[in-house]
Amino acid sequence: MQLMEEMILTHGKVLPGNILKVGSFLNQQIDTRLLRKCGEEILRLFSGCGITKVLTIEASGIALATATGLELDVPVIFAKKHITSNVDGDVYSTTVHSFTHNTDYSVVVSRDYLLPTDKVLLVDDFLANGAALRGLVALCAQANAQVVGAAIAIEKCFQGGGDALRASGLRVESLAEIESMEAGNIIFRS
Amino acid sequence: MQLMEEMILTHGKVLPGNILKVGSFLNQQIDTRLLRKCGEEILRLFSGCGITKVLTIEASGIALATATGLELDVPVIFAKKHITSNVDGDVYSTTVHSFTHNTDYSVVVSRDYLLPTDKVLLVDDFLANGAALRGLVALCAQANAQVVGAAIAIEKCFQGGGDALRASGLRVESLAEIESMEAGNIIFRS
Repeated sequence: MQLMEEMILTHGKVLPGNILKVGSFLNQQIDTRLLRKCGEEILRLFSGCGITKVLTIEASGIALATATGLELDVPVIFAKKHITSNVDGDVYSTTVHSFTHNTDYSVVVSRDYLLPTDKVLLVDDFLANGAALRGLVALCAQANAQVVGAAIAIEKCFQGGGDALRASGLRVESLAEIESMEAGNIIFRS
Repeated sequence: MQLMEEMILTHGKVLPGNILKVGSFLNQQIDTRLLRKCGEEILRLFSGCGITKVLTIEASGIALATATGLELDVPVIFAKKHITSNVDGDVYSTTVHSFTHNTDYSVVVSRDYLLPTDKVLLVDDFLANGAALRGLVALCAQANAQVVGAAIAIEKCFQGGGDALRASGLRVESLAEIESMEAGNIIFRS
């Protein structure tokens, strides 16, 4: 998606540790014009797939998931990172490793919201090693829900998670695919 | 807003400790039809106010803030609850007390995104004692940004935060105002 690539080149900052900072338009401050275009593009990519739910992990994927759900006209579900007092006991749960924070965390979603009849589109802002996305796939497997595919704003291809998931049979559509960003020089997959 | 009140009466659950669970349509699973209507109503309430930014706290306010930003056609900013490795050092910061989890947490927003020229609409899913909203007001004060008002999905009026903020001069618009919910019986403010 050309607009996403342009925004990354214009406003993204490459920080040490292969971190791409897109806080000015994607995950601290959201450019709603860009976000609407992302939702429209995801609708185009997955139209006719019979999607019934959008599933993301809090917190940074919520905005894109919301825009996608508004475009597809289906409910959006947030898998939560902690069991809070507002979550009933009856949940699907899996463990995800965060490479950013070097820690494991639990991801839970209520059994009431993810059903065997659901056709689920996974949405997240970033795809790097794929740990978060594998966690969402695991939650859907527990629910016997069908995963239609995954829609990602920015894939860091060089970290391999996206291609591994594609090799496993998951349809992964990333709006911008970064092949490398060595020395701060961002190269997109052609 | 009649639709919000109907959804609360039909799908909300009152749990011990004055907790209103609206996970099935507002903050774990989002009903996007409802969310779009909320965005439209907030646009109607604050049209002509010259709003330049929507500001919320992650995570449960993000969906409503996103829908609002899409309707108002302005950027959305998320104040973050922790300083992560993706946040630059130069932030506005304040401390908020969570009565739900009985703990204090830091709320930060980058100085790059909240400007003295901004007219800010605060958005959140719940308003109870008002601690989160006061935190957002404090961040805007640090930035010398003007707070136009606050748009809330559900206000628990009996916890007093909303009326205290109104008394302090803040315009607070809540799409559903719950006067009491004793013994699980939800009464709206008339």
